[in-house]
Amino acid sequence: MRFLFLGDVVGKPGYSGVLARTAELRKQHRLDAVVVNAENAADGAGLMPRQYRRLIEAGVDAMTMGDHLYRRKEIIPILQSSQRIVRPANFPESSSGRTWTVVQTSGGKLGVISLLGRVFMRPVDCPFAAVDTALSEMEAENPRCILVDVHAEATSDKQVLGRYLDGRVTAVLGTHTHVPTADSCVLPGGTAFQCDVGMSGPYDSIIGRDIKRVTNATISFEPSHFHVATRDVRLCGAIIEADGEGKAISIERFEDRIETQ
Amino acid sequence: MRFLFLGDVVGKPGYSGVLARTAELRKQHRLDAVVVNAENAADGAGLMPRQYRRLIEAGVDAMTMGDHLYRRKEIIPILQSSQRIVRPANFPESSSGRTWTVVQTSGGKLGVISLLGRVFMRPVDCPFAAVDTALSEMEAENPRCILVDVHAEATSDKQVLGRYLDGRVTAVLGTHTHVPTADSCVLPGGTAFQCDVGMSGPYDSIIGRDIKRVTNATISFEPSHFHVATRDVRLCGAIIEADGEGKAISIERFEDRIETQ
Amino acid sequence: MRFLFLGDVVGKPGYSGVLARTAELRKQHRLDAVVVNAENAADGAGLMPRQYRRLIEAGVDAMTMGDHLYRRKEIIPILQSSQRIVRPANFPESSSGRTWTVVQTSGGKLGVISLLGRVFMRPVDCPFAAVDTALSEMEAENPRCILVDVHAEATSDKQVLGRYLDGRVTAVLGTHTHVPTADSCVLPGGTAFQCDVGMSGPYDSIIGRDIKRVTNATISFEPSHFHVATRDVRLCGAIIEADGEGKAISIERFEDRIETQ
Amino acid sequence: MRFLFLGDVVGKPGYSGVLARTAELRKQHRLDAVVVNAENAADGAGLMPRQYRRLIEAGVDAMTMGDHLYRRKEIIPILQSSQRIVRPANFPESSSGRTWTVVQTSGGKLGVISLLGRVFMRPVDCPFAAVDTALSEMEAENPRCILVDVHAEATSDKQVLGRYLDGRVTAVLGTHTHVPTADSCVLPGGTAFQCDVGMSGPYDSIIGRDIKRVTNATISFEPSHFHVATRDVRLCGAIIEADGEGKAISIERFEDRIETQ
Ligand SMILES: [Fe+2]
Ligand SMILES: [Fe+2]
Ligand SMILES: [Fe+2]
Ligand SMILES: [Fe+2]
Ligand SMILES: [Fe+2]
Ligand SMILES: [Fe+2]
Ligand SMILES: [Fe+2]
Ligand SMILES: [Fe+2]
Repeated sequence: MRFLFLGDVVGKPGYSGVLARTAELRKQHRLDAVVVNAENAADGAGLMPRQYRRLIEAGVDAMTMGDHLYRRKEIIPILQSSQRIVRPANFPESSSGRTWTVVQTSGGKLGVISLLGRVFMRPVDCPFAAVDTALSEMEAENPRCILVDVHAEATSDKQVLGRYLDGRVTAVLGTHTHVPTADSCVLPGGTAFQCDVGMSGPYDSIIGRDIKRVTNATISFEPSHFHVATRDVRLCGAIIEADGEGKAISIERFEDRIETQ
Repeated sequence: MRFLFLGDVVGKPGYSGVLARTAELRKQHRLDAVVVNAENAADGAGLMPRQYRRLIEAGVDAMTMGDHLYRRKEIIPILQSSQRIVRPANFPESSSGRTWTVVQTSGGKLGVISLLGRVFMRPVDCPFAAVDTALSEMEAENPRCILVDVHAEATSDKQVLGRYLDGRVTAVLGTHTHVPTADSCVLPGGTAFQCDVGMSGPYDSIIGRDIKRVTNATISFEPSHFHVATRDVRLCGAIIEADGEGKAISIERFEDRIETQ
Repeated sequence: MRFLFLGDVVGKPGYSGVLARTAELRKQHRLDAVVVNAENAADGAGLMPRQYRRLIEAGVDAMTMGDHLYRRKEIIPILQSSQRIVRPANFPESSSGRTWTVVQTSGGKLGVISLLGRVFMRPVDCPFAAVDTALSEMEAENPRCILVDVHAEATSDKQVLGRYLDGRVTAVLGTHTHVPTADSCVLPGGTAFQCDVGMSGPYDSIIGRDIKRVTNATISFEPSHFHVATRDVRLCGAIIEADGEGKAISIERFEDRIETQ
Repeated sequence: MRFLFLGDVVGKPGYSGVLARTAELRKQHRLDAVVVNAENAADGAGLMPRQYRRLIEAGVDAMTMGDHLYRRKEIIPILQSSQRIVRPANFPESSSGRTWTVVQTSGGKLGVISLLGRVFMRPVDCPFAAVDTALSEMEAENPRCILVDVHAEATSDKQVLGRYLDGRVTAVLGTHTHVPTADSCVLPGGTAFQCDVGMSGPYDSIIGRDIKRVTNATISFEPSHFHVATRDVRLCGAIIEADGEGKAISIERFEDRIETQ
């Protein structure tokens, strides 16, 4: 199986870019599946139901979210009913949404799990326990490949989860910092790993937001609305190639620069 | 001028690697200067005076530190007397050490400043005010190029400082996360930028430390000494090429994999 | 001099209570001055210009704020022009507002300073340096008494500032946790101290907010608007008695339970 | 039933004070039980097995701990085997130690649970889920009274847990800030509550530590060993009186000033 995972989709630029490019990318890169972290799609925070539906129509197979899960409460019914979006598995047990999903792809079944890190993040439950539970529940579905999105701030948090899951899943790919890391590798057990795949949004920005606004607020402490930036839009992620047993054969950093004027 | 900046030197593997390779790297890459972040040299935390001296002898022109500045108090006399090491400029005003330095190189004078970020870090003074002061004090020395090490956790913190300093310094290069980012670029004003240049140490690790130790402690909360790891040693950093005015012409990610057995 | 300091005024219940009670309290307790932390007056976050003016009219001599300084940007012109409100002295240097003020009272001049703590708070500049500067600037005014509001989360942060200022100011009184502490004392140097004087607002609440709302959001992570609560309104603070040299003679915890139905 | 809960025992002064005073206090206040938070007994951090045993011999019925649970790893065998000490119930599931205990007292069975807060603390599992589980497991023992130690930084965290447990346990008493709060009350459902009962240790200090050491380190960032202070030793806590159904009738703040020279 060969699949693309795109990092945090930020605002209209990122969202429109994914809509416009997914079909073409599937062909061009012979992808069996496209999974997208959509936590920043709705004007920079959260995901709206309409966006969810259009992303699915555009060819996205499954979506993950992150700490911004509930920034748009309109998404809750989608979380409760849809098979193609997961909430962080270590959110409170009573939370709306699935802790794992398995989607059918042209390359076989693909399992998807989202985890939040705990260092410098809002306090969530143990990701190790949560992923063990999700993996064991998922077993009955017998997915060929499994993708785990580790949405976390600290590199150590992500690396520990990568090592913990090495050999048990196809890929552990990080999101949340909005900056791609240059450390993609296949770990000894056959799990593809990258600390962060970067955001899918405007790169002429501060992590997707207007440079001037963020800079002024950072220096002066006077808050202002952080508009989503507009220029240098890129879809960033990683392409994973896996063998018949769901072991990763390769991981390539992915970047698609979208023409904007 | 052409200079190499190496990120957080971790433990004996990183430290020995820098000692062994600096002379050769200077030749091979036609470097006018080598600057090193040495905050993790002493068994993973801090820097010992002897290490400082041997790094200078090996051809390092200047050193920066980070949040681990005082992990070895033995370094304080060095901080107070040496011209080749700076403390974070936004540490308390009474702190030991210089807030900037200028070293003579074969390519002209190179100014060096270290700043700590404020997001998810121990609270320090405003880095914007601190760097403005340092730059204005440094002006009398009229350095051709200026390198700013931004030692910070959050990508946003680093990007804001990069934009704030764009056009005023040759390079703003991040450290602290121990993972290189794939975002190196020259900003519009002519400042080379990279969120993190990665560590110089053992990469078969959790940010330089023994995988098993860190993983066990993370899952169980039972603390243990986090030994520095030993395998897959790499020196990571960035090479900056600047013009006669100190504007960056290019930035290349740098990685030197050291043979270990 | 004898003065009352009231902690964080929360929402309409707290604000209306201060308006209604200040004149009476001044008489009843023979107060020379009333100082109020008003950071939560405007529906729980920030302070509106109209509120500022009415508090002054009601007999409040001076106001402090806290981390919520800018939650209502409408207050900025007041911060820039008024003599009766101070911003945290260790906010960025460019911030709107005074870092200290001295008000004339029936007992002589009273100096007022606000500081933010740094532990578990948004990163601000060094409070020790900031208070040294404010005190030295204030010297020309020769105030008889000086009140320092330490707006901080951690008890250690507050105690360190209390000891640091012991003998140099009349009182170091804490705010921000919204819960009064039972540790009021006069330190050896003659400075009255209390870790937190508590909020002035509805105590049948979670730190002033609706119990059900906060509890649900804490457990489920689903955010909701945290309405200001309504019942069991109390004005909490401390009454300081000082001698002619501005040394504290006594500190009494103050609580005024307001009838509500 | 009538019981005393003493907050964080700090170092030799606090520990010796508890040893010396417990028998007398039991008589003087007609106590059926004494429960102690012992997380700082061993020179300020952790608890040693010998200390545990002597505290039991001195008449302590049960002990709670906190974030410093593992600062002395020697305590782990005690945690694994003893009935009179509990670990935080929302520590990792694999942790050593009991999540609840029930001890026999002269007033009937007393259940004891320890929870860690999540705001500004190391990330732990959901305390609401953990306490629900502990209470349901404890049910078979049918304790008359239940005491929950909420070891947390933020007042909001403690208040939410107090309200959540109101009517289900006899008392929710806070620890960790080392400063007693003046908010003790019986909540509407019959649960005694106090945000923090204060520490049992030297009060002429910064939360139990040497004033000069902590102040210097806070200002200069140069670390030093924070010796436990020695003067003004007080045992602080709360005395709860409960009816036959385990509902709290009253809560009184408790302070025992120990003569030292
Ligand atoms: Fe995120
Ligand atoms: Fe994001
Ligand atoms: Fe660091
Ligand atoms: Fe480092
Ligand atoms: Fe506040
Ligand atoms: Fe407040
Ligand atoms: Fe604690
Ligand atoms: Fe403690």
